[in-house]
Amino acid sequence: MSEAAQKNPLVLFMPSGKRGRFPVGTPILDAARQLGVYVESVCGGRATCGRCQIEVQEGNFAKHKIVSSLDHISEKGPKEERYEKVRGLPDGRRLSCSALILGDLVVDVPQDTVINAQVVRKAATDRVIERNAAVQLCYVEVDEPDMHKPLGDLDRLKLVLEKDWGWKDLLIAPHLIPELQAILRKGNWGVTAAIHRDMDSSRPFIVGLWPGLKNEAYGIACDIGSTTIAMHLVSLLSGRIAASSGTSNPQIRFGEDLMSRVSYVMMNPDGREAMTKAVREAVNSLIGKVCDEGQVDRHDILDAVFVANPIMHHLFLGIDPTELGQAPFALAVSGALQYWAHDIDIDVNRGGRVYMLPCIAGHVGADAAGATLAEAPYKQDKMMLLVDVGTNAEIVLGNKDRVVAASSPTGPAFEGAEISSGQRAAPGAIERVRIDPVSLEPRFRVIGVDKWSDEEGFAEAAASVGVTGICGSAIIEVVAEMYLSGIISEDGVVDGSMAARSPRIIPNGRTFSYLLHDGEPRITVTQNDIRAIQLAKAALYAGIKLLMEKQGIDHVDMIRFAGAFGTFIDPKYAMVLGLIPDCDLAEVKAVGNAAGTGALMALLNRDHRREIEQQVNRIEKIETALESNFQQLFVNAMAMPNKVDAFPNLSTVVTLPERKVLADAEGGEGGGRRRRRSRE
Amino acid sequence: MSEAAQKNPLVLFMPSGKRGRFPVGTPILDAARQLGVYVESVCGGRATCGRCQIEVQEGNFAKHKIVSSLDHISEKGPKEERYEKVRGLPDGRRLSCSALILGDLVVDVPQDTVINAQVVRKAATDRVIERNAAVQLCYVEVDEPDMHKPLGDLDRLKLVLEKDWGWKDLLIAPHLIPELQAILRKGNWGVTAAIHRDMDSSRPFIVGLWPGLKNEAYGIACDIGSTTIAMHLVSLLSGRIAASSGTSNPQIRFGEDLMSRVSYVMMNPDGREAMTKAVREAVNSLIGKVCDEGQVDRHDILDAVFVANPIMHHLFLGIDPTELGQAPFALAVSGALQYWAHDIDIDVNRGGRVYMLPCIAGHVGADAAGATLAEAPYKQDKMMLLVDVGTNAEIVLGNKDRVVAASSPTGPAFEGAEISSGQRAAPGAIERVRIDPVSLEPRFRVIGVDKWSDEEGFAEAAASVGVTGICGSAIIEVVAEMYLSGIISEDGVVDGSMAARSPRIIPNGRTFSYLLHDGEPRITVTQNDIRAIQLAKAALYAGIKLLMEKQGIDHVDMIRFAGAFGTFIDPKYAMVLGLIPDCDLAEVKAVGNAAGTGALMALLNRDHRREIEQQVNRIEKIETALESNFQQLFVNAMAMPNKVDAFPNLSTVVTLPERKVLADAEGGEGGGRRRRRSRE
Repeated sequence: MSEAAQKNPLVLFMPSGKRGRFPVGTPILDAARQLGVYVESVCGGRATCGRCQIEVQEGNFAKHKIVSSLDHISEKGPKEERYEKVRGLPDGRRLSCSALILGDLVVDVPQDTVINAQVVRKAATDRVIERNAAVQLCYVEVDEPDMHKPLGDLDRLKLVLEKDWGWKDLLIAPHLIPELQAILRKGNWGVTAAIHRDMDSSRPFIVGLWPGLKNEAYGIACDIGSTTIAMHLVSLLSGRIAASSGTSNPQIRFGEDLMSRVSYVMMNPDGREAMTKAVREAVNSLIGKVCDEGQVDRHDILDAVFVANPIMHHLFLGIDPTELGQAPFALAVSGALQYWAHDIDIDVNRGGRVYMLPCIAGHVGADAAGATLAEAPYKQDKMMLLVDVGTNAEIVLGNKDRVVAASSPTGPAFEGAEISSGQRAAPGAIERVRIDPVSLEPRFRVIGVDKWSDEEGFAEAAASVGVTGICGSAIIEVVAEMYLSGIISEDGVVDGSMAARSPRIIPNGRTFSYLLHDGEPRITVTQNDIRAIQLAKAALYAGIKLLMEKQGIDHVDMIRFAGAFGTFIDPKYAMVLGLIPDCDLAEVKAVGNAAGTGALMALLNRDHRREIEQQVNRIEKIETALESNFQQLFVNAMAMPNKVDAFPNLSTVVTLPERKVLADAEGGEGGGRRRRRSRE
Repeated sequence: MSEAAQKNPLVLFMPSGKRGRFPVGTPILDAARQLGVYVESVCGGRATCGRCQIEVQEGNFAKHKIVSSLDHISEKGPKEERYEKVRGLPDGRRLSCSALILGDLVVDVPQDTVINAQVVRKAATDRVIERNAAVQLCYVEVDEPDMHKPLGDLDRLKLVLEKDWGWKDLLIAPHLIPELQAILRKGNWGVTAAIHRDMDSSRPFIVGLWPGLKNEAYGIACDIGSTTIAMHLVSLLSGRIAASSGTSNPQIRFGEDLMSRVSYVMMNPDGREAMTKAVREAVNSLIGKVCDEGQVDRHDILDAVFVANPIMHHLFLGIDPTELGQAPFALAVSGALQYWAHDIDIDVNRGGRVYMLPCIAGHVGADAAGATLAEAPYKQDKMMLLVDVGTNAEIVLGNKDRVVAASSPTGPAFEGAEISSGQRAAPGAIERVRIDPVSLEPRFRVIGVDKWSDEEGFAEAAASVGVTGICGSAIIEVVAEMYLSGIISEDGVVDGSMAARSPRIIPNGRTFSYLLHDGEPRITVTQNDIRAIQLAKAALYAGIKLLMEKQGIDHVDMIRFAGAFGTFIDPKYAMVLGLIPDCDLAEVKAVGNAAGTGALMALLNRDHRREIEQQVNRIEKIETALESNFQQLFVNAMAMPNKVDAFPNLSTVVTLPERKVLADAEGGEGGGRRRRRSRE
């Protein structure tokens, strides 16, 4: 080894893989900083915060030409020993601010550094979010007042924050100005400042100040849905999820769905204010709930990221949503917004900030932007379809070259509303259905019961919860199974002639129903139920198809279902029904609350804020109502799976029935007429 | 003339003298903009705001080689004619947005363009303040919502503000977000935005929004003194002073002087809060007063600049001033600050901003910074002494090379407190005094009476107001005249032996007094009064002398008295007394409320904010208490005019008495002992 190499050992950081040579005696923290390896530190190298832990990997790393050994790192000095004695240091862990480089090293930067040993929760998401939070805690020791240099307390605080941490042109939250004298003196001139470096002002801001060392700061990521508000509470210093919880949106009392809430605003002079108050109160009590669960003081929350659909977004911010209820569906604001949490009545630290993701369009909100950030179609080589099915379906389709987005009014059928035996997913609800194609007998599973309905002991097991209705996932399955078993035609008409084959096909006025469960209540699937599902799935599919036409493609490479609905449905049945276009089933995945995951990403890494702001600007927004061929695509999509589109991937796993056309007993828009209008 | 010159006429703008060639047909406003000539415009060239008025000067301007003629400007077009018909246009005035260049022109940009013909007030100051206000009004026509491009209302507003006015990266005051839908629609998509371009964020901010054309915006400049709060209300668009007024500081009820107010805070748990509330309420009612006088809606106030001494500064901002009452006199904050007016309870437009000038030191506040900005010693070739005399005297000394500053505790004697017959300047107060050096008989003038006391008819004239006491200016004069007439020695001892010459020298315990007026009340000047004045003037002079020593100079070139005290005293007597060092009397001037003028400058031109921020950083602050020779300078300055310093300029206009030393009857620190300690 050359003398130069001996004097400048090689250090490799894992998992980043970044490496470099540093003079013997360099603190490992400094080396990490120089390489751009993210290692947290609050105390600024005083060995008091314990945030900068690392582990040395021992061994001969031939691939990297490094022999790494504990001898190549300095012994613990008195500061580090004091920290270990007082606060404890896990086996093998060292404080990188105090450990000096003596020879070649492979250094592991653990992602799980937890101080104060709080309860560790299940991760909100499997993904590792690289951290670059908007808020950083910085401990400093401020010069005492000096009559010769009569700079103010604040001005000396700013000076040392620049000297020790490099913060230039610092501003301060106004509420701290009257408080800082006492804080500085209480801390005997040693204080921790929370610096927010993602203010819309672009200058860093002192948003919090504590006497002595403050070693924890939290953030919340929140998705305000029409029905449910979901929230993660997360450490901004370690990325650890302290708690995740949800609550129902209390605005439900003003209207079940979004449009009825808009109507409420239009009809009631104080309606907007009442709903804004209700949703903010719900958010505040949910903050209380996650703080209780995570054993966190709500005043330690310094940053918050919110996503919401456009109407919730507007109501949360105190904006009248009336314009969103009528063409041209004008958003009051579409870009990302920042607030002092206090300004919108969110009860966290007085210096806490709120970041709202941008909205994509009048019906494609900040929640869709969050899901887009989480799934990142704009980074894919392949063509990704991202759908979030609710009362409105938000649809995003694209790859790294181009992304298009639209919404489609699916209505509430997929959520069990408008379905005669529909209900929300709850114990007693049928969640899975199979129909024997020969006997036409069904078997099903019920939420809260382990056995299928045709298994021994089902009746006893189901006795406690009952069999009460059909939830969203089962509605998809039962209609798909009815189609596969020939009970309904591709146009969705129940074949009354089948009544001869099975007593489960029963007349119902001029149409026929299918008896799924002859209990109390009696659960049937009516012709109207099927029509409702057809309308919903045709709206979704036509929207998707429109975007595919914009992209000039005839198939998608992967499909991501965001939201609760997507989590429970079986992709195969969704495809049989023609909710979604044909695709390799292995590439169809449910991604849970992707909107909330996007909020969490924007909370933990401010680069994701810039990323989604830029991407939302790039996304082409399609208004389905303005597209001349939407109506034709919708009509084609009323058929199962589709009047004109082929499903080659689906055909490899499911045998689709031959086409069979029945007259629509209601004389409606089904069957023959539509077929005549279909493509040549 | 060349063809090119004919196609590109020469245009000269006055009074700026900027000139350039522009293609025939260029609007004069565009030409002004290109040359950087400041011409206001709100409507953006639509000929509706009338702010961009100019006048063409006719004639042969040989010096500039320009023959300027009304034929060289286009006729009034229909837009301009409509404006003239509806709003009126003074004779000779043209709208520069509509008038096109047809040939060589000399264009006058009038400084008095007043719209809506409001009352014009007396100018607060003679100086012309070049305008570059932080707030600009910009009328725009926003694109209507478009389903194909679903940008929010705010986002389209920002786009057109960038397109028409060049504003990039605009932010918006949060309170406007819920309001903008209605404003845009009420204005039928034509709105006026108030842009604040001096936010501490450095990004321009939409702080106000009105439907249609909003053609006026105001600001306030305010000096919060311990005794009086003074305020100007001024148009940000024309610089016109709409009203100027003052009110007493209601904190007087918590303590007459600053230190007693600090004590009140220390002794009363809610003292700080009560005083903050009191001063903010007083500012708010003064805003009401100037708005009434100027016939202005307080919600049209969008910007405000405040100056104050450090204790008032802190109390106004809600900061505990206790630290300022004791060494090391630590300011909580010394740098300039910005707030939303709303955040500190100032009741103007909800988007109104507040700018606080920086403080120079613990006893040299933002008011001194304002005075420094107004008088600009840092721009002078000559050495300027700027003093503001109050309970503390603020002293700034310097030129373009170097500026030093200090405060000196003069106490309240100059304001008439601690003086046996002292009173505030009010009708009945003696304001001028002369003593006949032979007879020792006085004559004086009284505020509210035209005649001198020895003129015929004085008694009758004075009967209504009475002769009630001595105000600050007369205290200086009477002591100086007593010295000049030999009644007191240079050490300030009343010469009891003179009692033989005049019945006005009367015994008073172990000392003697001078009977100034034998009425009801009886007005005398006692030995104690003279001691109080000596202590005050010695403190001031010693502070000045200390700064002169720092500068290495033995004389100053010019002296500026800021504040009310300086306005009424006669510089000659101030010099006889030795308040100020020797100087050519023609170079000693009172500059009135220079602090308020500085605030006005910072209000009307944001460049002055940067200027004073930079200068305050440059100024060297001297803490007199820490200077070892301050005590000696103080002792020397007890003598009249000074024990050791010569007054050659003063000697040319006043014959100073020969030195005469008397034993101090009180056996105090006067006379002999001090002389023994004086310089060799």
